[in-house]
Amino acid sequence: MKDFFLLRDDITFLNFGSFGATPKVVFDDYVKWQLLLENEPVQFITVDGYRYINEARIALADFISCHHENLIFVPNPTHAINIIAKNLKLNKGEEILSTSLEYGAMDRTWNYYCEKQGATYIQQKISLPIQSKESFLNEFWQGYSEKTKVVFISQITSSTGLILPVKEICEEAKKRGLTTIVDGAHVPAHIDLNLSELKADFYTGACHKWMMTPKGSSFLYVHPDYQKALDPLIVSWGYKSAAPSNSQFFDYHQFNGTRDFSAYLTIPKAIEFMEKHNWKEKTEECRNQLIENAPKLFKLLKSKPLAPLTKEFFGQLCSAEIKTNEPEKLQRLLFEKYKIEIPVMRHGDKCYIRFSFQVFNTVSELDYLIDSLSDIIQSTDLIKLH
Amino acid sequence: MKDFFLLRDDITFLNFGSFGATPKVVFDDYVKWQLLLENEPVQFITVDGYRYINEARIALADFISCHHENLIFVPNPTHAINIIAKNLKLNKGEEILSTSLEYGAMDRTWNYYCEKQGATYIQQKISLPIQSKESFLNEFWQGYSEKTKVVFISQITSSTGLILPVKEICEEAKKRGLTTIVDGAHVPAHIDLNLSELKADFYTGACHKWMMTPKGSSFLYVHPDYQKALDPLIVSWGYKSAAPSNSQFFDYHQFNGTRDFSAYLTIPKAIEFMEKHNWKEKTEECRNQLIENAPKLFKLLKSKPLAPLTKEFFGQLCSAEIKTNEPEKLQRLLFEKYKIEIPVMRHGDKCYIRFSFQVFNTVSELDYLIDSLSDIIQSTDLIKLH
Repeated sequence: MKDFFLLRDDITFLNFGSFGATPKVVFDDYVKWQLLLENEPVQFITVDGYRYINEARIALADFISCHHENLIFVPNPTHAINIIAKNLKLNKGEEILSTSLEYGAMDRTWNYYCEKQGATYIQQKISLPIQSKESFLNEFWQGYSEKTKVVFISQITSSTGLILPVKEICEEAKKRGLTTIVDGAHVPAHIDLNLSELKADFYTGACHKWMMTPKGSSFLYVHPDYQKALDPLIVSWGYKSAAPSNSQFFDYHQFNGTRDFSAYLTIPKAIEFMEKHNWKEKTEECRNQLIENAPKLFKLLKSKPLAPLTKEFFGQLCSAEIKTNEPEKLQRLLFEKYKIEIPVMRHGDKCYIRFSFQVFNTVSELDYLIDSLSDIIQSTDLIKLH
Repeated sequence: MKDFFLLRDDITFLNFGSFGATPKVVFDDYVKWQLLLENEPVQFITVDGYRYINEARIALADFISCHHENLIFVPNPTHAINIIAKNLKLNKGEEILSTSLEYGAMDRTWNYYCEKQGATYIQQKISLPIQSKESFLNEFWQGYSEKTKVVFISQITSSTGLILPVKEICEEAKKRGLTTIVDGAHVPAHIDLNLSELKADFYTGACHKWMMTPKGSSFLYVHPDYQKALDPLIVSWGYKSAAPSNSQFFDYHQFNGTRDFSAYLTIPKAIEFMEKHNWKEKTEECRNQLIENAPKLFKLLKSKPLAPLTKEFFGQLCSAEIKTNEPEKLQRLLFEKYKIEIPVMRHGDKCYIRFSFQVFNTVSELDYLIDSLSDIIQSTDLIKLH
């Protein structure tokens, strides 16, 4: 399958998780939209673009099971979370309950906005490895207090690559009267996503990761109850619009100055690509291979899976704790000497190496990773085993 | 020259001003960057991208005469002005002095942020036609009071297409101890721009208009004195960065989540294109043609030039007041029946039709516009002449 992508042949690409990769047919679709824009920029941007955007919204809404009018496109989940964080009206002393496993850019965003309001972003410590869904939920809710007003949580964590039980979290949060915000950056087309069932108040996901659209293509879902309360992050013509549409949510957030929004428009083509190539079956096989083969990595690194090695916690991402003082140097060595693209990331006081297993990856690539790490263990002191 | 662009052959394209248009060689460069990104997304975005961005910054800085470290790239001037407006700390009752000729998205931005702080955005009424630079300056400064703290002004206005004497405004503003913010959306590669001489505190310009890069490519210049005071508009990894660069300004604002930043990287190619094709000479000829031929339009519409018809006030844009109750319908008719792309815009209680005269435009296209408007005057009641 790698021939369907534009990725370099000489690289063992085990980092689909960070930025995905775009199939050639989707890239061609991207250029097609960009050419159409250049053909008649004014018609594209001010007239036809609204229809194109709406078609992409409808296709995406169908894919993630929600109403398209509850979606807007944003360049990335960071942008989406900033829209929400700017608008959350918290009182002094109130708390946002989150976990110790969140993405650093989001932690910075919440800390920034909480500081402004005298609120507190609580990163409830999650012990690793997670023992079970129940133990996770139990530990998470220990962070709750009567000051908690909001829950923010990743559905799939970034550095640690774990699926968290956000449906159960959202259900319990509703019972406690909390607003729920889910960071699903790694979710769409990675694991099943049904927003109607999940019932989060806010949900953001990237299309440019596992859905494989070009970079800068993501969405923000907002439950209708919350849409009217959101001021724009970037004020433009849509704010107090002279020609409002039926949706203030759309007017306030969808267009913020001139840009090439072609990446959004490739979403239908990316969905078509996945359907045509039986992506559901193929990625199911990826998950099977990951669970079967991941133990080799844990064995080599003398570390344990960060949660029970089942599909409840693992999709196509798998992180292992790796003991190193120089994660950047290790990552660079893996890339330059071994031609392996794989992230080695600090998170808290630990480091993690995370492999992605996409449809074009093979077990022999994983074995090559293991061999390369063995070689590094033997030839350098970059990795410690105790 | 139109063959150098991707524009439709069948359209008389008299609206370069809104979104520019990209030469084929610049578009090819755009796709080249996007392919390189897709070749190895991780290296492109997290490693090489910094170097590429810096090369584009250096090329742009040279083109507009400033230090590249005082520039960041933003998708558009709206984004840039939002960064500034969010961060201006105004006290209750303080004022931003601007004009009645500004771009609607910016008016909305200033009103939004002023309202939050109890400050006032003063749109000093500029009488049209402008009689002279002196009369303009005189009228502008009548809006000044001891509560004025900031001046915000377009160097080239949008609906009215006029060059304003911002250098003189900035000089006087400095004397009065005011912060100066210039909206140069329409300026780069349209008229000469030398930021070192202009001495504005903040300046934003679009590269995707007259510099002809793909859409979503603009810059924000900030004088070093002000850089440290700017919080990010979109908080991400660069805020309180774990690995800061030498510039907080760059770290806070340049990267806000994953996106395709290829449009920024085409700036050197766009500059090369202009140099190769003697753009300075060619556009000088455009300005001459505009001044020579614009009177035909004013005569037909029985309106007057909005300022003395000289290069002091006119570049490659020319707006004429047009009396119509249905500007959108008139614009649509011009496009659909006559295949002319030209904006007809409301501004205040007036409407303006604005033609652009780019290198590929011809006098016969202007004549065709005049003929088409004559035809509309005779066959409909969309345009009034008294």
